[in-house]
Amino acid sequence: MFTLIIGNKNLSSWSLRPWLVLKMLNEPFEEKRIDLTASDCKTRILACNPAGKVPLLIDQQLRIGDSLAICEYLAECFPAAGLWPDDAATRAIARAVVAEMHAGFAALRSELPMNVCGDFPAASPSAAAQADIARISSLWESLRQQHQGNGPFLFGQFSIADAFFAPVVWRFHSYHVALDGQAAAYAAHMRQLPAMQEWLAAAQREEQASASSK
Amino acid sequence: MFTLIIGNKNLSSWSLRPWLVLKMLNEPFEEKRIDLTASDCKTRILACNPAGKVPLLIDQQLRIGDSLAICEYLAECFPAAGLWPDDAATRAIARAVVAEMHAGFAALRSELPMNVCGDFPAASPSAAAQADIARISSLWESLRQQHQGNGPFLFGQFSIADAFFAPVVWRFHSYHVALDGQAAAYAAHMRQLPAMQEWLAAAQREEQASASSK
Repeated sequence: MFTLIIGNKNLSSWSLRPWLVLKMLNEPFEEKRIDLTASDCKTRILACNPAGKVPLLIDQQLRIGDSLAICEYLAECFPAAGLWPDDAATRAIARAVVAEMHAGFAALRSELPMNVCGDFPAASPSAAAQADIARISSLWESLRQQHQGNGPFLFGQFSIADAFFAPVVWRFHSYHVALDGQAAAYAAHMRQLPAMQEWLAAAQREEQASASSK
Repeated sequence: MFTLIIGNKNLSSWSLRPWLVLKMLNEPFEEKRIDLTASDCKTRILACNPAGKVPLLIDQQLRIGDSLAICEYLAECFPAAGLWPDDAATRAIARAVVAEMHAGFAALRSELPMNVCGDFPAASPSAAAQADIARISSLWESLRQQHQGNGPFLFGQFSIADAFFAPVVWRFHSYHVALDGQAAAYAAHMRQLPAMQEWLAAAQREEQASASSK
């Protein structure tokens, strides 16, 4: 059985991605959490991952310490699950949007950090963050228009691309980012997934436990 | 034939990666350059890639606008070339170090930007950049120790991991970053590759042409 080491569900956008893929695969896994607000968290993370990051996937002797590499590994372990689109050209586009999310959108990520339980109606993103929001909205809109005949996700069926944008779905909700058309419908569909609701409920429980212990 | 749109060879670290993979594949391709120092460069890049970035690979109707997604696509197009290690667990580790480079090392990247023709003996990296340098040196050292029996690259044979660290090889050289042991030997081996020397010579020609036109 896989073990996935993750951070706090309220905050750790990188952790949500492979967690969601494992849930969508319906694959049992052991989940271990490192509290990213604890003073010794750096030491605890470095003890299991020299890259100093969560998430980390453990599969027997193998330890994979990056969310994209974990998802690629899961795609190879479960080829029938279609975690990447079947068509080579569509798969290349899916990998490009995932890579764009993996390395980009710096303004969005620093100004609107994922805070699943948060509610920030007064957020006022900078021009750079607004450009990131516009790019993501337009990506979602165009991908949904192209693939709407094959299912409700970015590329029709659920893929790694949806896992990579799942943290943005929570960000747009917490910070009241207005969406239109297919982009709005996609975000609503993602939030209602049982796995996303399970993540939200666990994040709320973790935050309540943390508040009552302080 | 593939077309690869890249930035200035002196500066564009993202462009070097797929360019080097294509050269190591010995695959002919048309190269088109967008001058990243020109005032209209943003407009020119957005006209071919809505993500607003170089490099971009064009293969007939397909346009792939991220260096990692391009390399994954080339690995699928040329399965016999071994652009990823054959063994599934080793491949997962290779993807993890590539993903770490793709999204990380922010201090190194902002303080020691790639400048292939530059020589900066007085560089004084911050503590954060020094931590990035230490992490990369230790990655190179341990990968070379594990795979030295199979060839001179990070995973023995040339792989996408070498392409991803190629810009760091130039950075360490330009900024006089001291390396030891296997990490030093690896960097020297990379710099002497005919394709890396071809990139360097072209960067020098581009810089001279640019200086004489100003």
